Amino acid sequence: MTVICETTIPLRWVAREAKPEGTVVRVREVNVGGPEIVVMAGPCAVEGEAQLLETARAVRAGGAKILRGGVFKPRTSPYSFQGLRGAGLELLARAREETGLPIVTEVMDARQLPIVSDYADLLQIGSRNMQNFTLLEEVGRSRLPVLFKRGMSATIDEYLHAAEYILSGGNDQVILCERGIRTFESSTRNTLDLNAVPMLKRRTHLPVLVDPSHGTGHAWMVPSLACAAIAAGADGLLVEVHCDPLQALSDGSQSLAPEEFDRMMIQLAAIAAAMGREVGKP
Amino acid sequence: MTVICETTIPLRWVAREAKPEGTVVRVREVNVGGPEIVVMAGPCAVEGEAQLLETARAVRAGGAKILRGGVFKPRTSPYSFQGLRGAGLELLARAREETGLPIVTEVMDARQLPIVSDYADLLQIGSRNMQNFTLLEEVGRSRLPVLFKRGMSATIDEYLHAAEYILSGGNDQVILCERGIRTFESSTRNTLDLNAVPMLKRRTHLPVLVDPSHGTGHAWMVPSLACAAIAAGADGLLVEVHCDPLQALSDGSQSLAPEEFDRMMIQLAAIAAAMGREVGKP
Amino acid sequence: MTVICETTIPLRWVAREAKPEGTVVRVREVNVGGPEIVVMAGPCAVEGEAQLLETARAVRAGGAKILRGGVFKPRTSPYSFQGLRGAGLELLARAREETGLPIVTEVMDARQLPIVSDYADLLQIGSRNMQNFTLLEEVGRSRLPVLFKRGMSATIDEYLHAAEYILSGGNDQVILCERGIRTFESSTRNTLDLNAVPMLKRRTHLPVLVDPSHGTGHAWMVPSLACAAIAAGADGLLVEVHCDPLQALSDGSQSLAPEEFDRMMIQLAAIAAAMGREVGKP
Amino acid sequence: MTVICETTIPLRWVAREAKPEGTVVRVREVNVGGPEIVVMAGPCAVEGEAQLLETARAVRAGGAKILRGGVFKPRTSPYSFQGLRGAGLELLARAREETGLPIVTEVMDARQLPIVSDYADLLQIGSRNMQNFTLLEEVGRSRLPVLFKRGMSATIDEYLHAAEYILSGGNDQVILCERGIRTFESSTRNTLDLNAVPMLKRRTHLPVLVDPSHGTGHAWMVPSLACAAIAAGADGLLVEVHCDPLQALSDGSQSLAPEEFDRMMIQLAAIAAAMGREVGKP
Repeated sequence: MTVICETTIPLRWVAREAKPEGTVVRVREVNVGGPEIVVMAGPCAVEGEAQLLETARAVRAGGAKILRGGVFKPRTSPYSFQGLRGAGLELLARAREETGLPIVTEVMDARQLPIVSDYADLLQIGSRNMQNFTLLEEVGRSRLPVLFKRGMSATIDEYLHAAEYILSGGNDQVILCERGIRTFESSTRNTLDLNAVPMLKRRTHLPVLVDPSHGTGHAWMVPSLACAAIAAGADGLLVEVHCDPLQALSDGSQSLAPEEFDRMMIQLAAIAAAMGREVGKP
Repeated sequence: MTVICETTIPLRWVAREAKPEGTVVRVREVNVGGPEIVVMAGPCAVEGEAQLLETARAVRAGGAKILRGGVFKPRTSPYSFQGLRGAGLELLARAREETGLPIVTEVMDARQLPIVSDYADLLQIGSRNMQNFTLLEEVGRSRLPVLFKRGMSATIDEYLHAAEYILSGGNDQVILCERGIRTFESSTRNTLDLNAVPMLKRRTHLPVLVDPSHGTGHAWMVPSLACAAIAAGADGLLVEVHCDPLQALSDGSQSLAPEEFDRMMIQLAAIAAAMGREVGKP
Repeated sequence: MTVICETTIPLRWVAREAKPEGTVVRVREVNVGGPEIVVMAGPCAVEGEAQLLETARAVRAGGAKILRGGVFKPRTSPYSFQGLRGAGLELLARAREETGLPIVTEVMDARQLPIVSDYADLLQIGSRNMQNFTLLEEVGRSRLPVLFKRGMSATIDEYLHAAEYILSGGNDQVILCERGIRTFESSTRNTLDLNAVPMLKRRTHLPVLVDPSHGTGHAWMVPSLACAAIAAGADGLLVEVHCDPLQALSDGSQSLAPEEFDRMMIQLAAIAAAMGREVGKP
Repeated sequence: MTVICETTIPLRWVAREAKPEGTVVRVREVNVGGPEIVVMAGPCAVEGEAQLLETARAVRAGGAKILRGGVFKPRTSPYSFQGLRGAGLELLARAREETGLPIVTEVMDARQLPIVSDYADLLQIGSRNMQNFTLLEEVGRSRLPVLFKRGMSATIDEYLHAAEYILSGGNDQVILCERGIRTFESSTRNTLDLNAVPMLKRRTHLPVLVDPSHGTGHAWMVPSLACAAIAAGADGLLVEVHCDPLQALSDGSQSLAPEEFDRMMIQLAAIAAAMGREVGKP
């Protein structure tokens, strides 16, 4: 009485067997998927120059290797802050110039791809777009690496088949990212699914990151789940940090303050060492 | 210990209070949301002229008022049949010409909107795109009515806020459609959520359809759930019918054969009458 | 990459093939699973003599054939009202004497079985006990019929295997009851899963009821879902009615007032007729 | 539009505020909830003397501090192996005598409590019985400590209120255990919810264990999730080990072989050290 499904179609490019040694994705000088644990950090949304630069300096000082910041923001309500769009990209470029950190930012739509590609070092596909197949086909034709987040109700099988759209298009520089799935539990924003880490590492050669900020929705939980993610075998983390979380226009309750980020990085270094890996020094 | 969320932002255009009498969406001469139960039927995917015309004639004979048929197909695997695209739109136009039925077909991407709008009478937004906000903004600027399906893991609140993107853009001709949500149950493809019908009817003035084909994934279950949907208060149905389900390139196991569709329509007429409504005669 | 599971063990007694013609369960003079739609109604919890008798008279007048009322109440918190226990059974017996309605009440534990069996005409196993296997084995040895509710996160397969515990113990007088499953949706208490109705009717010969009160958690939704359940093919309903819902000690927000119950029964009669069945007259 | 619910009733005994310093549960000479990480290991089911003793010696050699083994087995199908029952308790006592390890075993029913209490050092309440309130009330009157597993679809709130039944009955020696929740994901048996670890540690003073064997259903995933659990802040683990997993009568695919257990314990020691804790030496 089982439902026949597309996920029985074999994966050609994404499967571990296609590249048993594992893929290392290069984002400027940063290697993702190698021995080093890579932390990408920054604000949920770019809100202005002072906020972005202050946060960027703080996360670099704490040991982050890539700066994150959203400028095109997918929001549940049309009346929520939608992001600074083009102006935000300029600010990200300025922050990169000052800090030297490569930048990752989300592209929501195929038509935004040219402008975002002019600025970003790493293109983010958000979880709501995991099955936006026309967007996947476009980034499959891009030369930029892609941070590809799992959909909030996607099975591992569906996730891997969606990644196949990108790789089969010619772009094999794809980083996966578990960011929490939708369950009945209501005390957390999502249920971060760390089972996904060993499962993905076994089934595919692509690097695997974890986003404990969206995965839990509570800043105070982020350090514990970040440590757990590294212990589960993740290759890095995507973490929301804001220079002043209480004033954040988006997701403040799940953003770490800089000093909390610093403390987390110290804990992470110990866990990484226990795993025979390291979290890069600033 | 609750998570603050965007869904507490009030709905301006979508809320029932904005139009207590209810919206009737007009698709050519067909009224959706009025006293008549409207059945939209046809193949999951347009596969060729003979398949489409044979199916179109059959569903019109059975009492369908609008012809459905996908030409841009969102598929889990890139190696599955992706639809006939432009050529399929031509076939739909020919089927409309021959049968007189208005056509509804899916648009997956803002860039497809111009070409799909040249052919379709009703634009379908699929469940994977429920939170493709740039697409919602585009159809918000369209003059065509929209069949807007619920995401497979969207709460009712998120669904209504997504509809707000379309209405706040200026297009109030929106038909909602429950099509099954993702749960732990594995004997059906999805769990058709008929609770959504009275909940949506209470919270919004927009018409509400139900898609029992995707909602269950089993053709033999479709008539029972179709009857249940009407008894729950739905304004219509979206049903997959194929002239030869065993040969279908997509979703054959959930497609009704024409004679099964006819039998279902007779049952539906009885239920509709019990509800003080009617299913249109051919 | 599938998990081997016990649900591949064949069902011996529960499967439709074991009794293709279907089982009719007899509760005193009431037949469940025959042509008549049977409505069981009454308060969530027995609170006192006046409340019970007033409600019992009202549901009989409205057309209910069996009186429900909980006396051993499984409650999330130990500080909630736990039921009248033994004294409640006495009240149920008095209500039966006065109204002639057979009574169904929940047994939470094997040790309660002797006393509950002295009073009840139909033993209810609640959803939290669907896999309380020692209790299932005990009721399998009982001569009383059983109303066996689906667990809130049980698959159809698990539900049928749990029923197999009762039938394989020697008791084939089992009525199944869908009562809502746990999903991510939060606007309703549970998600009533009407897919379960045709699925259960196909896979087993046992009668299938639906409980729209627990399934939705909102009294105003109960009539719509009750109609939908009958249209989906259910053999009856389990509905919470309280003579004064605002004063109920348990689940008041999902209980119908008597006049709402009466209106629902009129609607149900029309739907039942459309299905070629009937809801018994008072 | 929220549903009023019992979980807003305050927790009296279980809340962190009731005992800010945290509870240490003593199982013979083993402290659970103190600085040491406690690993409980052994077979899913006791199958016979040789199997149990060989496994018991192996887990003690690897560093386990408590021996687990089921003798009353809750099984989905009545035709699956149901456990050795009384004879199994005798074997557990013999294994304790030989290895010195305290034993934990499941009690499924209030009537089994006297006999299980004669043998067990720690009473296990399984996830299917998390809301078997009569059983909770009984163990609340016991002087034995309790290993109380989360239900597979219980929210954190419901779980804590269920624990309140035990503590309010007078027994405060309760160890919580996350063991995976039911979600849409099908590549793992359950979704181990490590968010639960910091959430429970914040909301209650009770020790928190994690069961990665049931949580994933795959032996090869157990070491990764065990490490993740400790990094997330868990006080210990419950792990299935079988001297010959391929021959196991129950849950073999999720049981570690002794040499796999040994390797996992070495990894765990490194993670525990990084957390400023230790996993006890044999």
